[in-house]
Amino acid sequence: MQVEKWGMLELTFQGKKDGNPYIDYQIKAVISGEKEKAEVNGFYDGDGVYKVRFMPSYEGIYSYQVLGSFADAGECGEFTVTANRTENHGPVRVRDGHWLVYADGTPYHSVGTTCYAWTHQNEGLQQQTLETLKKSCFNKLRFCVFPKYYAYNETEPQRYPYQWGEEKGQDKEKAARKITLNIPRKKEPEDITDFDCYTFNPAYFRLLDQRVEQLMEMGIEADIILFHPYDKWGFSTMKRECNELYLKYMTARYGAYRNVWWSMANEYDLLPQITEDEWDAYGRLVREQDVYGHLCSIHNCIAFYDYTKEWITHCSMQKNDTYKHAELTDQYIQKYQKPVVWDEIAYEGNIDQSWGNISGQELVRRFWEATLRGGCAGHGETFVHPQDILWWSHGGVLHGESEPRIAFLKKIWDETPGGYLKAVDGALDEVVAIPEYAEKTVTWDNITWTDYELHYYGFNRPAFRRFNFPEDEKFHMEVIDTWNMTIEDAGVHSGTTEVKLPAREWMAVRIRKV
Amino acid sequence: MQVEKWGMLELTFQGKKDGNPYIDYQIKAVISGEKEKAEVNGFYDGDGVYKVRFMPSYEGIYSYQVLGSFADAGECGEFTVTANRTENHGPVRVRDGHWLVYADGTPYHSVGTTCYAWTHQNEGLQQQTLETLKKSCFNKLRFCVFPKYYAYNETEPQRYPYQWGEEKGQDKEKAARKITLNIPRKKEPEDITDFDCYTFNPAYFRLLDQRVEQLMEMGIEADIILFHPYDKWGFSTMKRECNELYLKYMTARYGAYRNVWWSMANEYDLLPQITEDEWDAYGRLVREQDVYGHLCSIHNCIAFYDYTKEWITHCSMQKNDTYKHAELTDQYIQKYQKPVVWDEIAYEGNIDQSWGNISGQELVRRFWEATLRGGCAGHGETFVHPQDILWWSHGGVLHGESEPRIAFLKKIWDETPGGYLKAVDGALDEVVAIPEYAEKTVTWDNITWTDYELHYYGFNRPAFRRFNFPEDEKFHMEVIDTWNMTIEDAGVHSGTTEVKLPAREWMAVRIRKV
Repeated sequence: MQVEKWGMLELTFQGKKDGNPYIDYQIKAVISGEKEKAEVNGFYDGDGVYKVRFMPSYEGIYSYQVLGSFADAGECGEFTVTANRTENHGPVRVRDGHWLVYADGTPYHSVGTTCYAWTHQNEGLQQQTLETLKKSCFNKLRFCVFPKYYAYNETEPQRYPYQWGEEKGQDKEKAARKITLNIPRKKEPEDITDFDCYTFNPAYFRLLDQRVEQLMEMGIEADIILFHPYDKWGFSTMKRECNELYLKYMTARYGAYRNVWWSMANEYDLLPQITEDEWDAYGRLVREQDVYGHLCSIHNCIAFYDYTKEWITHCSMQKNDTYKHAELTDQYIQKYQKPVVWDEIAYEGNIDQSWGNISGQELVRRFWEATLRGGCAGHGETFVHPQDILWWSHGGVLHGESEPRIAFLKKIWDETPGGYLKAVDGALDEVVAIPEYAEKTVTWDNITWTDYELHYYGFNRPAFRRFNFPEDEKFHMEVIDTWNMTIEDAGVHSGTTEVKLPAREWMAVRIRKV
Repeated sequence: MQVEKWGMLELTFQGKKDGNPYIDYQIKAVISGEKEKAEVNGFYDGDGVYKVRFMPSYEGIYSYQVLGSFADAGECGEFTVTANRTENHGPVRVRDGHWLVYADGTPYHSVGTTCYAWTHQNEGLQQQTLETLKKSCFNKLRFCVFPKYYAYNETEPQRYPYQWGEEKGQDKEKAARKITLNIPRKKEPEDITDFDCYTFNPAYFRLLDQRVEQLMEMGIEADIILFHPYDKWGFSTMKRECNELYLKYMTARYGAYRNVWWSMANEYDLLPQITEDEWDAYGRLVREQDVYGHLCSIHNCIAFYDYTKEWITHCSMQKNDTYKHAELTDQYIQKYQKPVVWDEIAYEGNIDQSWGNISGQELVRRFWEATLRGGCAGHGETFVHPQDILWWSHGGVLHGESEPRIAFLKKIWDETPGGYLKAVDGALDEVVAIPEYAEKTVTWDNITWTDYELHYYGFNRPAFRRFNFPEDEKFHMEVIDTWNMTIEDAGVHSGTTEVKLPAREWMAVRIRKV
């Protein structure tokens, strides 16, 4: 057996299928390579099939031993880990508390998007979503395991994550505490047969496997949302035992995909039935079960979670102010000493909801703010659509203007010497970013220059800019139109230099020491 | 003698001119009407001429007695105060701690602008400024007594406020503490002959009289800036005795103009040579000398002054954040319990400075934010100009796009039932303003409706808006395009109503209960 480094080994076994194999039997593997040893849980995939998945992090010969009550005997064997293909950079990690990097050392410049319920749409729409993603710049997709019930989301999903049955999944006491979300609906939810929270529906998870793998092959991180409040079925109000069973199933099944990130929740604070202690316990459980150390966070509606908690690898933020958010990225990085990922800073669109009707220009401005301040931002699209197909939840095709501009930003970001940007003081109408290794000092009457600088003006629109370079050094300047996606050579300069700008919004200047 | 209510009585006398009449002699008047008594200081106007000015607040017969060392004998007399003309609403006052109102009870809806150094430009330019103001909507003009030395302001003024002479105006010790402002200059200031801070130049003040009066006749408040840091002559570093002499001269000379506001400083915090104790003393001096209770405030560069100080009537604010400022208007009104006047929220323009290159759209958005949140905003214009004539400092003509839109806003503002707006909770993508007498309650699942509401969406662009009106009440709706200046009738509705919007920025909806 061969598997590439950061690829996935999958071992499949036939085993017992009497009783409820999801809880009655266990399967695990002890895996041993020269540079790593791991014990990973397997999972039941229905029809008497058990699987164990493993992602190796080193090349070489590995041995494995599969154990558990799933069958009368286990199995031993070996596999060889080959070098990773160049397009396989490994899982994303945190570097120096501030930045994101692939395991192979390549900086990870996150430009994410969101299709919350795309795996619950019809097959044709899911294929269209994959096509759109393939043509796009996005390298992270945020989506839910559980189906979504909300405005524009009133169609039953293609498949449910659980089987319907006698065993009650919903914790009635907790369900009673469920808040009434002020969700505009075309119709009220119908009563549906209760589901069995001890019996997963493997058909749904096989589809999810395929989708996560397809994203992986396209170089897209799968930011998997484990819980969310937009629910009428009871998936958000399961008893703790079932939540834990689910989290173990998810980590066993998806931990070995290198592109997986764990998002404990979308808008955890709209799930008051889950206490902070429970979130912490769930988060720790995921981190313990996941032997690979995938990124793990939790996303807010209003109140940020306490991102200093040890189980949280990065800040997965939704803006909680209408006017100022991405502009605080560098402050949050300093505060939490973790990377900042703006998973919601409002979507390009025109719907009635406050979080879904900004312009492409404004979304791109927020991307530039977040990126130049050392963090990253997430895209989403919510345009009114005749069939209520909104990229934000359903996927499909893009209707907005921001994606090519985000791609343009990423191209410039990818050119950063050393790979990582950080913000430094500048004038009050600009964001100034320099490479993370550089130091810049700005005082009232003196400014030092680094070898690479991006000056971004956002909604400010100077007709020219004066730069006081040293007389004895040369600087190559470029004028960047972040919306019209042009980079204009502005020559090489020393000393006091005035660069002409078009007095339009969303301009930037790039400066490289020659 | 006749004078209208809130008009100006001016008594002129010949008196002593030996020595230095500005400090050697005094003139004051004791004035008595049926409903008010006042003791006002007069001032020396050069050439042996002394003047006493008085603004009566009631109709009827008044008597006066002029006293002082200015002449060997005083004078007594009477005058009659007639009814004010309809266009004369009296001075602006504070109403209920939050709003601005003319003395006759007419709400004052402030839409101000700024021409800092317009009275120091050549006569032609000053006339052009007056012409522009006459055609504009602006009803407040902010400007400095002292000339300005700064970028684009390097020409010597037409007249100086002091005469040049032996007596040193500048406090050398304090001047040494003067900060070096990081001002881009075309040339360094030349050494100039020192001025005599005990000898005013009446020619300059006679011009200023005329300008204040011209503004008054146009219904424009004169927001007179008493000190500012953009100085090379030493007017910002005079000794305390001279500062006090100057303030007494200003209050004696200008207090009787109904349209005068006192702005103790432009950017007080760039004048570290004046301590907070001194500012407070100067502020109290102005309020004591000014028997009419004109509005009085002090304007910041970065740190807001402590507006809770008793001598301050309103908050004269410069934004101290790039992204969020006018959006905090209602919070500042609550905090300081005083009206909020945004005298600087960046200017429409395209210059290199951070405070002078936003779009007309963005400036108008800030006006709407400030206004609907119960405060008011100020305009300014800083477009690069071939002769360096920028409205913000020099006056002249307007080049931007915001003024007609500000006029449009004022027209809508003027239609507010009761005259005063206040902000209440709404969705996160809107500002909702209702009349000050009304009450609105907004909870998670219920909203009450008042008889008049403005909903403003700013940079958010919904394609429609859903309003859940009661079934048994009727509401007339209008769709307002705040940029294209259109008001479209959207019909009368009850119950749940969806109003179509153009999915563009800067839209508003006005709702009137039928």
